[in-house]
Parts: sequence; structure tokens; C-alpha cells
Amino acid sequence: RVARMLNALPPAEIARLLESLPPPQRAVVWELVDESYDGDVLAELNDEVRATLLEDMEAEEVVAALEGLDPDDLADILQDLPDTVIRQVLASMDQENRRRLEAVLSYPEDTAGGLMNTDTVTVRADVTLDVVLRYLRMRGEIPELTDSLFVVDRNGRYLGVLPLTALLTRDPILTVAEVMEREPEGIPATTPATEVAQLFQHRDLVSAAVVDERGRLLGRITVDDVVDVIREEADQALLSMAGLDEEDDMFAPVPVSYRRRALWLGVNLATAFLASWVVGLFQDTIDQVVALAVLMPIVASMGGIAGSQTLTLAIRGIALGQVSSANAAWLLTKELLVGLLNGMTWAVVVGLIAWFWFDNTQIAAVIAAAIIINLICAAFAGLTIPLALRRMGIDPALAGSMALTTVTDVVGFFAFLGLASLYLA
Amino acid sequence: RVARMLNALPPAEIARLLESLPPPQRAVVWELVDESYDGDVLAELNDEVRATLLEDMEAEEVVAALEGLDPDDLADILQDLPDTVIRQVLASMDQENRRRLEAVLSYPEDTAGGLMNTDTVTVRADVTLDVVLRYLRMRGEIPELTDSLFVVDRNGRYLGVLPLTALLTRDPILTVAEVMEREPEGIPATTPATEVAQLFQHRDLVSAAVVDERGRLLGRITVDDVVDVIREEADQALLSMAGLDEEDDMFAPVPVSYRRRALWLGVNLATAFLASWVVGLFQDTIDQVVALAVLMPIVASMGGIAGSQTLTLAIRGIALGQVSSANAAWLLTKELLVGLLNGMTWAVVVGLIAWFWFDNTQIAAVIAAAIIINLICAAFAGLTIPLALRRMGIDPALAGSMALTTVTDVVGFFAFLGLASLYLA
Ligand SMILES: [Mg+2]
Ligand SMILES: [Mg+2]
Ligand SMILES: [Mg+2]
Ligand SMILES: [Mg+2]
Ligand SMILES: [Mg+2]
Ligand SMILES: [Mg+2]
Ligand SMILES: [Mg+2]
Ligand SMILES: [Mg+2]
Ligand SMILES: [Mg+2]
Ligand SMILES: [Mg+2]
Ligand SMILES: [Mg+2]
Ligand SMILES: [Mg+2]
Ligand SMILES: [Mg+2]
Repeated sequence: RVARMLNALPPAEIARLLESLPPPQRAVVWELVDESYDGDVLAELNDEVRATLLEDMEAEEVVAALEGLDPDDLADILQDLPDTVIRQVLASMDQENRRRLEAVLSYPEDTAGGLMNTDTVTVRADVTLDVVLRYLRMRGEIPELTDSLFVVDRNGRYLGVLPLTALLTRDPILTVAEVMEREPEGIPATTPATEVAQLFQHRDLVSAAVVDERGRLLGRITVDDVVDVIREEADQALLSMAGLDEEDDMFAPVPVSYRRRALWLGVNLATAFLASWVVGLFQDTIDQVVALAVLMPIVASMGGIAGSQTLTLAIRGIALGQVSSANAAWLLTKELLVGLLNGMTWAVVVGLIAWFWFDNTQIAAVIAAAIIINLICAAFAGLTIPLALRRMGIDPALAGSMALTTVTDVVGFFAFLGLASLYLA
Repeated sequence: RVARMLNALPPAEIARLLESLPPPQRAVVWELVDESYDGDVLAELNDEVRATLLEDMEAEEVVAALEGLDPDDLADILQDLPDTVIRQVLASMDQENRRRLEAVLSYPEDTAGGLMNTDTVTVRADVTLDVVLRYLRMRGEIPELTDSLFVVDRNGRYLGVLPLTALLTRDPILTVAEVMEREPEGIPATTPATEVAQLFQHRDLVSAAVVDERGRLLGRITVDDVVDVIREEADQALLSMAGLDEEDDMFAPVPVSYRRRALWLGVNLATAFLASWVVGLFQDTIDQVVALAVLMPIVASMGGIAGSQTLTLAIRGIALGQVSSANAAWLLTKELLVGLLNGMTWAVVVGLIAWFWFDNTQIAAVIAAAIIINLICAAFAGLTIPLALRRMGIDPALAGSMALTTVTDVVGFFAFLGLASLYLA
């Protein structure tokens, strides 16, 4: 009964369920999934969860499960399998399907070529709609998510689209050439998935043609796969800010997660020791005025928060193509001014509190000055670090946050303790 | 020439461009946009940028720009306009269109009802496909992103869909009832947009019917709007972690941004003083062993990073419905174990460095113990804080990060300085 309910769900929902189960329950539910349904569910799983399930399957089971999958999904799965299994899968396919799969496999997973399927329905420009209508009836079946047929010339060059709605409403004696739309142009197979997603988003597409460097039709991308790309990119941006990966299994064994997290903590430790070393330079000053040790976390914390606001805006703006060298100068001026205003505001507040707490106007003045300095530096670092990282080819979401807090800690401690050593000790 | 190129772009691309321009250039580009195109571009802009552009337009210009927009877009825009303009817009519409708009306006923006359009094409179950085909040809036009017609009974109750592909391939003498699909069910108009997005994602839909509480067809949601929902929710999750809002203008005037950021910095200051107060409890200990002031940022920093890893996983898991009370216990055990292992690892490393640096085994032992304690607390807080916030109806992405670092700062300082005061002073 449970199995029947489970197998009535769409594969993506079963996949989300499997991902949210601890390994013992996951194995039980996976057993309940119909064998004929295994492939569709595998295609929707994240890489690591899929790998754990595939590990426990015989090569023959894997080959059977993958039978009948779309080339795009099959290509994704095969890329993570051992060579022997890949060869077995390829051997089990007929020549036509193998050729199609190899077309998709020849492009990286995160390009238009890797996202495409080869289930295009093509027509010639010189036939009438009536001929097309009769052809479709004879064909008897149109692939899912087909909103238009692709018009090609006799060399297979992509010319444009013939929307199904045009077929249904325009006069059947018209030719395809008279009715077809030349927009959108074919997407080159090497286009990055991010750009494909933006194209679908901006032009409200359901499907689009993928072409090779000579303009010949290779396949098509459908909006359901684009939706998955958008979702995964967004998740990746969020998770990579904490040094995590969207393809990881939340229930991975403790030793696996331990090693992954350790790496990130190790990088952080190095930056933390840098800040610590700055504090160490002023041990004598702290020894004389212990209130400095009490107040110094505040300077670092305010800088870190202010900087992370600018940084987050910049990371998103860079990802959407809305922040670039063209408007960076204007943005920088604005962020510096906002930093200055907030620096002055909170300098007054923190200064007053420090004054009442330690009854010392000099400490109050020093921390006020340090907060202004650190918030201005935070604004500067928050915008320039992600732009610099991007220029170096490093994902700003991955390294930006740690680089930023290193700057705000170091500048904050140095400004606060440095000023204190000049005016207090 | 520039204007011609600009107006050849899809409205969403013009909107992204306007959003990424500082106000002076933005005004120039906005002037270049064709008047007949203004409405489509306004519909794609984020709330604040749109508001700044609308501010500078006469009421008559606004009414003219909004003419012909889809009800879903119109409803979004109207909700942010002054009452006088809303009345003018409603007055300018014919009764039919006003009724449609009011249907959409009666649901919140972030529900199925707010996302829907009323441009449905409906057919009855008892007619033949041939009748439907002739009806479509007579109608002459099918709304964009229509992949299926909706089947309704004579009371307007939604029964299922008739895919266009079925119309094109199945025998025309069959009745709609014989060919239609009863899945997916109609989406109740009050369904949250997040659930609508998951439904489209899991079932690979292009369009879906929206129904009222009695099952009557109200309108339809199309995948292009769902893509925008997914994109905006993802951006919001990222930005709200830094106390920012997806609908804000990156180039808002300095005073506006200053006030927004100040709020978040003020909240942070309160939590920072809490940590500071904890340090203040141990002033005497620091006065005796100044090395403690040098090392204490490391304990807080390692806890903050470790905790934010657990927190980020939990925030994403909660948003996707993959973390709940059902698996929280298992996840907590895992995260605590990972925290323990990483605590022990970095306790050894930090302990050794502290030992060499200050030539003091007791300091080394105290910081090692404090790191283990803080990383275990970080794992606990990283998972329980977002779950608790959610139970309280607060967005975990908004408040989680600040709450977490408060815990890891307070616990880190208290454990490190507390142990030091017991064993060192
Ligand atoms: Mg099975
Ligand atoms: Mg993935
Ligand atoms: Mg993969
Ligand atoms: Mg693929
Ligand atoms: Mg769009
Ligand atoms: Mg696919
Ligand atoms: Mg799919
Ligand atoms: Mg204009
Ligand atoms: Mg928005
Ligand atoms: Mg709005
Ligand atoms: Mg709406
Ligand atoms: Mg899907
Ligand atoms: Mg719309």
C-alpha cells in the first residue's frame, strides 16, 4: 500500500524524499520504488545520494534502470559511474540511441550541449501547414514539453520555430516559411548553463534549439531542465558561502562530512590566527588597559556585518551581471558614503556606551574612531574583494565571506588597538 | 539608433539593465524606452526601481503605460500605487477586464491567485476534437505559453486538461472526455507561491489551472512566472541572511540605504555588547594573563564558522521541506558528532600553536577545551536555532545567522575565559 502511494508520486518528489531520509530508512524506501521507475528517480537525485544508491546495485541492475532515460539525464549519471559500467550501458543501446547519447556526452554537463535532448521534431520551410498536420498525425506522438517544431534546411541548419499554436490557428494552405518565427536564434552548444537560464528567463521560453558551430540543429533544451539549473545555482550560491556543496548528501557518513567541514575550518583558522597576531602586537597596551580586550570584539563584529551587507549585494549583482566595472565606481562611492554615515552613527552610540561603562573618554574616542575606520574599510572590501576574486576566476560566493571578515578583523583590531597604543598607553 | 537597439530587447533584459544603472543614466535610458513598451518593462522591474520611475510620471502616463498588461502583472504594480491612480486605472478599463483584474487583486501577491492570469481557453468534455480544432481556428489566437486547454463542466468546474499535442495527434472524432488528462488537479487559489513553484518543478509543468474553493476554474499560472518566483525566492534567501531585501534598489539614495543598513547594524551591536559583557566578567583574568585577549577571537571565530555550516544546511533543508522534526534527531546526532570530531582536531592544532606561541601548556589546554565545547554548541545551535525560529514564524534566513554568532561568541568567550579563570589565575 505504501509502495503504491510512493510510486504514484512524480520522480522528483520521490528523489526529494530519499534525500531527506537517513541512510537506513532511505534504503527501505528505495527498495519500495518500482524497478521501472528507478531510472527516473536516479535522474532527479543529487550526485552524492545517487552515488550511494548506485554503489549497492549490480552492474546489470544499473544498466536496466538507466534504460529509456533521456540522453541529458543519462549523460549526467554516466559521468559519475565507473568506466566498466559506462561501457556496459553503451553496449546495451542501439546505434541510434548511442549516437544521441554520445552527442550529449561530448559537451560539459553545465553547457547548452550537456542540457539538451535530441528529441526534436523538425520540418522543412517549403511544405504547407497541412502537410505538417498530416505528418504529426501519422507520427502519432510528440515529445513532452514541445511547444514548437524546429524548421531546418536540407543540410540540417536551424532556421526558426513553428509554434504548435500557429499550426492550430493559421490557414493550413500557408507554407511553414510564411508562418515560422526566426526568433529566438539557436543556442550554441558551448553556451554556459547560466546564460541559457537567463535566456529562458528573459524571453519566457518553453523550449529552444541547440546548434553546433555551423548552425546545424543538435537538439533542444526544455524549461523543466532550466528550472532545475536555476534552483541548483541558487542553492549552490547559498551553500558555497559556508564552504558547502549543493551536491552533498545531508546524511553523508560522519567521517565524510567531518573531512569536508575540516577543510573550511582550517582555512578559517589561518585567517583567525592572522587577526590574533595583530592583537598580539598590542599585548602591552592591553596589559595596561584591559578594557580594550573587552571592547575589541565589537569593532570587529560591526565591521564584519557592515562589510557582509555590501559583499552580499555585490555577489548577487555579479552573478546576475548587474555589477561590473561599468558601475563599480558609482557603487563604491555610494557604499563608502553609507559606511561613513553608519560608522559615524554607531561610533557615537558605542562611544557613549564605552564612556559610561569604563568612565574613560579616551577609550570612548578611540573606539569611535576605530568603528568609523573599520566601516569605511568594510564597504571598500565588501565591493572590491568579490570583483577581484571574479577577475582571478574564483567564485566570489565561495571565498568572499572569509576574505572579507579577515580584512574587517585585521583592520578593526589594528585600528582600535593601534589608536589605543598611541593615545592611551 | 541606441533607442532602436534598446527596444529590440525583451522587456526583462531592459529591466535588468535599468536596475544596474545609477539614477542619472537610468533616467536617460528610461526615456529611450518606447511608450508602448513602458508597461512591459515596469512589470519586470523590482519594486523599488519601479516606484522611483513611476514617481516621475503623470497619472495619465501611468494609466497609458499600464494599458494592456496581463492581470497578474497589473495587480503587482497597482498594489504599490496611490489610491487615486488605482481608481484612474480601474476607471479606464472595460467591465470585462476590470472584473478579471479584481479577481487577481483579491488574492495576495504570493499565492496562486496572485500569480494567475485569466486568459484561459476552455472546452467542454462532451465535444469532439474536431469541434475543438474548428473552434481554435475560428478564435484565431491562442494565449502565449498555452500547452493545453482546460476542460470545464457547464458550471465552470475544472475537470482536466486537453494537451495541444493530443489535439494534433489523436483522432478528431474522439471526444474531449476520451482524450483529456485528469492530472494535474487544479491548484487552489490560496496556495502559497512556494508550493506552486515546487509543484511546477516536480511535475515539469508549463501551465496549470487555478481553482476556487468549489473547484471552479479561475485562471492559470504559466511557467515563466514560476521561474521568476524561484529566482526571487532564491535571491531573497541569500540577501536576507545579510538583512537585505531583494526588492531594494542597489542605487537607492545614500540616506535610504543608510537607514536600512543601520537597523541591521543596531541589532548586531546589541548582540555584540552581550558578547562583550561576557568578556567583561573576566577582566581580572585577562589582566593577569594577557595572552587570553590575543587568543580569544580564535575560539569565537571557529565556533561561528562551524555553526554557520550547520545553519546554512538547515536553512536550505527547511526551505525545501527536507529538514523537519521527523529527521531532526538524526541530523542533530550527526552534526554533534561532526562538531566533536572537528572540535578535537582543531583543539589539537590550536593548542599546539598556542603552546609554542606563549610557551604555556595550561593556556594550550584551556583553549583546546574551549574549542571542543564551542564547536559542539555551534552544531547544536546551528540546527536548533533555525527550527525554533521557524516554529516562531520567523524566517530562519533572516535572523538565524545573527542569533547563531551570538551563541557562538558568548559560549566561546565564556568557555575560554571561564576555564582560564579556574585553572590559570
Ligand atoms: Mg528499487
Ligand atoms: Mg544537483
Ligand atoms: Mg552531476
Ligand atoms: Mg545534463
Ligand atoms: Mg520572464
Ligand atoms: Mg531533461
Ligand atoms: Mg526532468
Ligand atoms: Mg519612456
Ligand atoms: Mg522581485
Ligand atoms: Mg511586488
Ligand atoms: Mg502577481
Ligand atoms: Mg523537474
Ligand atoms: Mg505573467
